[in-house]
Amino acid sequence: MIEYETASPEVRAVFDDIMRTRKVDSVNNFWKALAADPATLRRTWESLKQVMAPGALDPLVKEMVYLAVSATNQCQYCLASHTASARNKGMTDEMFGELMAVIGLANQTNALAAGFQVPVDEQFKTPS
Amino acid sequence: MIEYETASPEVRAVFDDIMRTRKVDSVNNFWKALAADPATLRRTWESLKQVMAPGALDPLVKEMVYLAVSATNQCQYCLASHTASARNKGMTDEMFGELMAVIGLANQTNALAAGFQVPVDEQFKTPS
Amino acid sequence: MIEYETASPEVRAVFDDIMRTRKVDSVNNFWKALAADPATLRRTWESLKQVMAPGALDPLVKEMVYLAVSATNQCQYCLASHTASARNKGMTDEMFGELMAVIGLANQTNALAAGFQVPVDEQFKTPS
Amino acid sequence: MIEYETASPEVRAVFDDIMRTRKVDSVNNFWKALAADPATLRRTWESLKQVMAPGALDPLVKEMVYLAVSATNQCQYCLASHTASARNKGMTDEMFGELMAVIGLANQTNALAAGFQVPVDEQFKTPS
Amino acid sequence: MIEYETASPEVRAVFDDIMRTRKVDSVNNFWKALAADPATLRRTWESLKQVMAPGALDPLVKEMVYLAVSATNQCQYCLASHTASARNKGMTDEMFGELMAVIGLANQTNALAAGFQVPVDEQFKTPS
Amino acid sequence: MIEYETASPEVRAVFDDIMRTRKVDSVNNFWKALAADPATLRRTWESLKQVMAPGALDPLVKEMVYLAVSATNQCQYCLASHTASARNKGMTDEMFGELMAVIGLANQTNALAAGFQVPVDEQFKTPS
Repeated sequence: MIEYETASPEVRAVFDDIMRTRKVDSVNNFWKALAADPATLRRTWESLKQVMAPGALDPLVKEMVYLAVSATNQCQYCLASHTASARNKGMTDEMFGELMAVIGLANQTNALAAGFQVPVDEQFKTPS
Repeated sequence: MIEYETASPEVRAVFDDIMRTRKVDSVNNFWKALAADPATLRRTWESLKQVMAPGALDPLVKEMVYLAVSATNQCQYCLASHTASARNKGMTDEMFGELMAVIGLANQTNALAAGFQVPVDEQFKTPS
Repeated sequence: MIEYETASPEVRAVFDDIMRTRKVDSVNNFWKALAADPATLRRTWESLKQVMAPGALDPLVKEMVYLAVSATNQCQYCLASHTASARNKGMTDEMFGELMAVIGLANQTNALAAGFQVPVDEQFKTPS
Repeated sequence: MIEYETASPEVRAVFDDIMRTRKVDSVNNFWKALAADPATLRRTWESLKQVMAPGALDPLVKEMVYLAVSATNQCQYCLASHTASARNKGMTDEMFGELMAVIGLANQTNALAAGFQVPVDEQFKTPS
Repeated sequence: MIEYETASPEVRAVFDDIMRTRKVDSVNNFWKALAADPATLRRTWESLKQVMAPGALDPLVKEMVYLAVSATNQCQYCLASHTASARNKGMTDEMFGELMAVIGLANQTNALAAGFQVPVDEQFKTPS
Repeated sequence: MIEYETASPEVRAVFDDIMRTRKVDSVNNFWKALAADPATLRRTWESLKQVMAPGALDPLVKEMVYLAVSATNQCQYCLASHTASARNKGMTDEMFGELMAVIGLANQTNALAAGFQVPVDEQFKTPS
């Protein structure tokens, strides 16, 4: 992992932008690890900054969608860091509980739909 | 798949509740397939009815979380049926685009966090 | 896909062994596709013949474990072919229904355990 | 995580039922974590109690199916706790070895079926 | 899906860049589908153009890595399109066969490592 | 885990072959764990020895494909051990960075292709 003190100017520029955008005074381990490859660091940060910004969906909804993907993939780092982000953006205990219930249910019915080999209903088919 | 006409009274009772709750006049293939096992049909429907109902999260957010899980798992049936549900509940093209962008990003960073073997930051650790 | 008629002697030898072992007169598409790489065809068939044979677990239990993996991975080919195999080995409708219920539940609780970031209980820890 | 001592009556009722059903004097971390959302705690426990009970499949087979899903999903908590459950229900070293061999094989052939893009054989197709 | 003829200037600019870069005269369905969200279309194409370009790894190796991810995820669209790309870049039958063998093996041992709950060897631990 | 000192002759023979083939003087935890089931130990080692050997693909490319599968599956043990193997076979920081970028991108576009329900282009369809 690359620390700010020993980072190249290119990496520092990304770290600075992360800290400025998020109004924090250090970056998470994820960014320090990605800094081993400055091009991937920059590309990933630029994408994340655009994608997670407010838009048609509010940032808390985006964080919850992020948690849904991460719980499905069993990504421990992502769950730890994005649960904190979601809490910071206002996720209450009750919202967290319902979120988890939906994630659990969707993983259950995904496996059932596959296992029962359910054919797609005519009305749901996309024209191809 | 079990059709309403040939269903047992136990299965019909669930089909009736699905149609009444959703204000539709037929049930999707998913339920017709699950009807092969009435206990699983009933348990799954009861869970889904509770979990997807309005609460601390609104039903459209729940549908989008559902899509996040289903895209991550590559569940074609679930994507076809729940994209339709989300549209019915008000998901616009713009919301769908942003939703997909978040889902794609989360799957990308999940793989990066694993591949770079990023250790969880102290401040994100849950007490165990 | 390689058909028996046009297969090399090396591939034919594997096809013959599959048909003899399974008491059938043709091989499934899976083996015809793998035949494009005779070494992988032979290695995969030899492993499968050993692993799926009766042992401490009976062959039907093994087929159901196979379905559990395949439903979790959303592998359509594997679900189609191994559901047929499990039926041939005696899986009843009731067994299938219960199997699917367990698979669905396990996928649900897997996601919940990840999402709630549940720490492993002391008594379940393996010595390392 | 919610401990019994500080749990609400609603959570205690579920904890009591878990301990009574399993004839143990404490509950695992999984249930203590889910207790943060009493509705999800109750729903998950009720489903698990029904689904894992003896039926057309015996409880040890169900535990092994559970392990198949959990190994495929890389769920560390679930593997730790359900390997213990399966051992308690009589899984021998030999059964565990064969179980793992089937799980490994199924994950291998799932990837091969996808990668070779094997079309489903006519005889395996479900009517849709 | 958005066709070139009816695309906005913003979408057309991306389509033009794809066709110019790849020296082809039409774009795949993937890009036509993403065009529903021009920002995601542009971001995804820009990332892909950078990431898949020649560098420390040659483009064919990158295509094979892409196939490894796609077979693991059971992504049918990605397997269909990137198998064609890999063939165009020189993947022979023999290379394809070995690639699939590695992908199958890795999925097998991934499940075994999880199921046997193998602790990481001291010498492989990353400093955290 | 089975240590060499207490291993049966059958297990020792495999451990000896691993050490001889890899020119090392001990075996990793993975093999010590698999040794609980000698048949699975032997079968897995024999497959791995064949599949990872030089052939149409060079061994480093195979290690990188292995990492692609392991990052997608979130297999921590496999990432730790095979990142070390890939480093030993010559993977530079730059190659690692590009590898991770491809793996991240592929996981992203896999989810997008599923979520947008992109139909396979005619020219990519395999004859069935």
